[in-house]
Amino acid sequence: MAKKRLKAIPLGGVGEIGKNLWVVEFGDDLIVLDCGLAFPEDEMLGIDLVIPDISYLLDNREKVRGIVLTHGHEDHAGALPYVLAQLSAPVYATKLVQGLISVKLKEHRLLGSVEQIVVESGDIVDFGELSVEFIRVAHSIPDAVLVAVDSPVGKLVFTGDFKFDQSPMDGKVTDFARLAELGAEGVLVLISDCTRVEQPGFTPSERVITETFDRVFQAAEGRVLITTFASNISRVQQAIQSAHRHGRKTAVVGRSMESNVAVARELDYLTIPDGALLRVDEVNKLSPDKILYVTTGSQGEPTSVLSRIANQEHRQIKLEPGDTAIISATPVPGNEEAVARTINKLFRQGVDVIYGAESSVHVSGHASREELRLMLNLIRPQFVVPAHGEYRHMVLYKRLAEECGVPASNILMTDIGTVMEFADSFGKITDKVVAGDVLVDGITVGEVGEVVLRDRRLLSKDGVVIVVATVDRQTGMVVAGPDVVSRGFVYARNSEELLEAAKERALQALEVAVPGQAELGLMQSKIKEAVGKFIYEQTRRRPMIMPVVQLM
Amino acid sequence: MAKKRLKAIPLGGVGEIGKNLWVVEFGDDLIVLDCGLAFPEDEMLGIDLVIPDISYLLDNREKVRGIVLTHGHEDHAGALPYVLAQLSAPVYATKLVQGLISVKLKEHRLLGSVEQIVVESGDIVDFGELSVEFIRVAHSIPDAVLVAVDSPVGKLVFTGDFKFDQSPMDGKVTDFARLAELGAEGVLVLISDCTRVEQPGFTPSERVITETFDRVFQAAEGRVLITTFASNISRVQQAIQSAHRHGRKTAVVGRSMESNVAVARELDYLTIPDGALLRVDEVNKLSPDKILYVTTGSQGEPTSVLSRIANQEHRQIKLEPGDTAIISATPVPGNEEAVARTINKLFRQGVDVIYGAESSVHVSGHASREELRLMLNLIRPQFVVPAHGEYRHMVLYKRLAEECGVPASNILMTDIGTVMEFADSFGKITDKVVAGDVLVDGITVGEVGEVVLRDRRLLSKDGVVIVVATVDRQTGMVVAGPDVVSRGFVYARNSEELLEAAKERALQALEVAVPGQAELGLMQSKIKEAVGKFIYEQTRRRPMIMPVVQLM
Repeated sequence: MAKKRLKAIPLGGVGEIGKNLWVVEFGDDLIVLDCGLAFPEDEMLGIDLVIPDISYLLDNREKVRGIVLTHGHEDHAGALPYVLAQLSAPVYATKLVQGLISVKLKEHRLLGSVEQIVVESGDIVDFGELSVEFIRVAHSIPDAVLVAVDSPVGKLVFTGDFKFDQSPMDGKVTDFARLAELGAEGVLVLISDCTRVEQPGFTPSERVITETFDRVFQAAEGRVLITTFASNISRVQQAIQSAHRHGRKTAVVGRSMESNVAVARELDYLTIPDGALLRVDEVNKLSPDKILYVTTGSQGEPTSVLSRIANQEHRQIKLEPGDTAIISATPVPGNEEAVARTINKLFRQGVDVIYGAESSVHVSGHASREELRLMLNLIRPQFVVPAHGEYRHMVLYKRLAEECGVPASNILMTDIGTVMEFADSFGKITDKVVAGDVLVDGITVGEVGEVVLRDRRLLSKDGVVIVVATVDRQTGMVVAGPDVVSRGFVYARNSEELLEAAKERALQALEVAVPGQAELGLMQSKIKEAVGKFIYEQTRRRPMIMPVVQLM
Repeated sequence: MAKKRLKAIPLGGVGEIGKNLWVVEFGDDLIVLDCGLAFPEDEMLGIDLVIPDISYLLDNREKVRGIVLTHGHEDHAGALPYVLAQLSAPVYATKLVQGLISVKLKEHRLLGSVEQIVVESGDIVDFGELSVEFIRVAHSIPDAVLVAVDSPVGKLVFTGDFKFDQSPMDGKVTDFARLAELGAEGVLVLISDCTRVEQPGFTPSERVITETFDRVFQAAEGRVLITTFASNISRVQQAIQSAHRHGRKTAVVGRSMESNVAVARELDYLTIPDGALLRVDEVNKLSPDKILYVTTGSQGEPTSVLSRIANQEHRQIKLEPGDTAIISATPVPGNEEAVARTINKLFRQGVDVIYGAESSVHVSGHASREELRLMLNLIRPQFVVPAHGEYRHMVLYKRLAEECGVPASNILMTDIGTVMEFADSFGKITDKVVAGDVLVDGITVGEVGEVVLRDRRLLSKDGVVIVVATVDRQTGMVVAGPDVVSRGFVYARNSEELLEAAKERALQALEVAVPGQAELGLMQSKIKEAVGKFIYEQTRRRPMIMPVVQLM
């Protein structure tokens, strides 16, 4: 019998930043590490969310011992309700993470039917032949852990997201001692976050932001607004404390942020001085120099609180000349234009906007190059797998790991669905399983695929022209229509002539092409060809032509 | 009679980066400064280009004495063919600019019918009571000028794009002496580029790129590819020279770049050592370490040469492991995702990609903060107008100008269409004229407006569902259909049931709503309501519902 090996399979989170989901498997025991979603790329028109294809998990459902989460961000925990709708498994995570996911599970009516087990740094949980040790790391949300999976053939360390913040807001620094110990004990494979490998040096501590906030509060005479990611509990903490020191009261505004803050507060992950946090209507009664709003909208999302304020459409908050807005986040790739629009609109209202790399209002939650090196040198793994990055990040991380002495052949470059096997001094890609994107659109999961997206792209480019006609089944004569209707192509009132002429072409196509017979497919394709050609000649555009012929 | 004042009106290029077009007017004499286009924003679905609304020019066409261009970039000269199609005026520009626009005019069949007058730095041209002096500045394309417009009430200086590159590739530095002289003579108003005001310090010289290129050529053992903006003649020059020094031959690939290079070469703005520039099929015969490709595609444009190479679809160029690609440009806001995709794909092919801020492969063509200050201190204008920036850039520039001693009341914050008037110590916004965006889609100019774009956005989000029925005019009975067809909504084969049920709802709506009568509008709205509601309940999505009822 072949010796059993430790398997690791990314079902998401390699070659991409989002939807982190890894399978770790030994014999008959399988655990899931993280369960994240991704936000759609620009070209995924109309899609709300992207989650990993978990066919592999469903095919192996009898082996699944548990789902382990490293922290509470959407790209690590957001797919959980979708996965748990198809697969039953206990969920292991720290207290804050359990609190945050409970909100999601409740929305999906799964709360209560899922076993949620709270763990803390230092805990070790057994899953058959595997066991998982939880070890504290610093990140931009409290209560984040790194996990060390032990197996009969060696240890696998999965970093989740981390940075070596030496002065995190909650005072809980990374457990360096245990990481060094792990390294001394021997680690078979390290799966490392590499998303910020392009950045030299160390990521600054969250604490530098406090200095900026203090400086702004010192100088500001009007209202202050701070926007950040709804999940950035540490940043909200900093904002509230800094405001409090300068005699301001805070209102947190925006559904997702309010619910995160409520959970964090209930579970004691937010320290709020008495009376420092008020409802927005209460804060609005104070003089402007006593007000701080902390809101959603740092990514320019069109329905967020900040976008509505920038459009002067928010019901409760109105900013005025002399007020200050701090954009305490960087735009995620793809959101740059939307964020810039928001900033411009605020400036137009006379608001002073503090934003951008030069102004120390945001730091990343991810490790920069020197921290990635430090992690490698603490863990001293035999094999290394870059994760949580686009392909270019993985390549740059591979080079960095080589510089740290890891042999090139021991660094595995993976794709989604790649099966890696490890044992003793063995570490190789051995197989590939089904994996990929599942698109969530409204309440339908996985029904919108490439064909539908291709049509949406076509429709978005030049619109649609619909040609309708009713034809006598016996004679092939047109008895009603053709009618031509368009949307997203031309403004119909300005283009009556063009559409009239298109109608003519459709009629000719029907008459010339199919005298005395009524073949639906043929008639429709003739209309499509004739009208499409005519419109292209006239406008150099290619709207989607949709002929609908009815027989009677 | 009221004393005549100097008027300045931006018809584009304020509150936005693109489509720079200014009107300067005194009495019966009007000149146009620059004539640029913009590329569409993300939400302008399917639009090819955006040009300024020139209603004001058309209403005042008898006053227009000429169009003056500062340099050959699209955002300063690209709208010229569209404007000249509606308005006849002589065009004044330096030799290279005339060469580049001739290519465009030829494409639009306007070459020969337009009077093109070549000017050079130091020239002064009279336009009635106005005169224009052309003064050399450095930018990322050769032969750029700043213009000083003289009028009976004082001088207006329009910077166009500039940076104070002390060692430009063509050796032609900004004419500092003349700028200082202008300042000493007295300048009424300065209209200044402010697009890079967020950047502290000085923009590095183009020359630093040469060092990077040399370093890469020194080390590279395979093919090298350099991509940059098609108009970046200086960068192409650097690439060819550096390649030549290292024994490589260059092929320039990509339609727009080839045509720019051909013009620049013909007019002696490119110095090419004998035999250094070859056709791509000639270069392909050499060993990889003798090859440089200079290509389009630095913005990830899907049909560009580099994108096709990254997709392994280019007919003549194939990169291999060990080859090097240099992305010698930064992504324009909105293009970040596309550029990242290209880089990732190249890395996946084993190509080493050199990109990003850390690697000194690109410098901006625009002045950073210290250069903007220097321009202010050289020109010492009475009034200042920030231009060529989004609103936030204009605000930051205003603060910078105040720091340089310009009184806040003398800095005018404008919008597109704002009329400013200047005379002696007077400078104010006095009026507003019609101005805005005109969208170019295919060969139609200005026919696609907000209604069409709104429909495209709707279509792109959830697609379209078309419901067709034929109804007897007399009885109101349905004689054919209803048929339901969708695109971009669901994959029809998976959703037959849903579409069948929608058909039922449409039939019910027709029968219940209008027994015994056939009112087209009413029937269509009943279908729309019933089917829309049903689909939203089932899917939580809102495709565009298009009912088409035919009467017979």
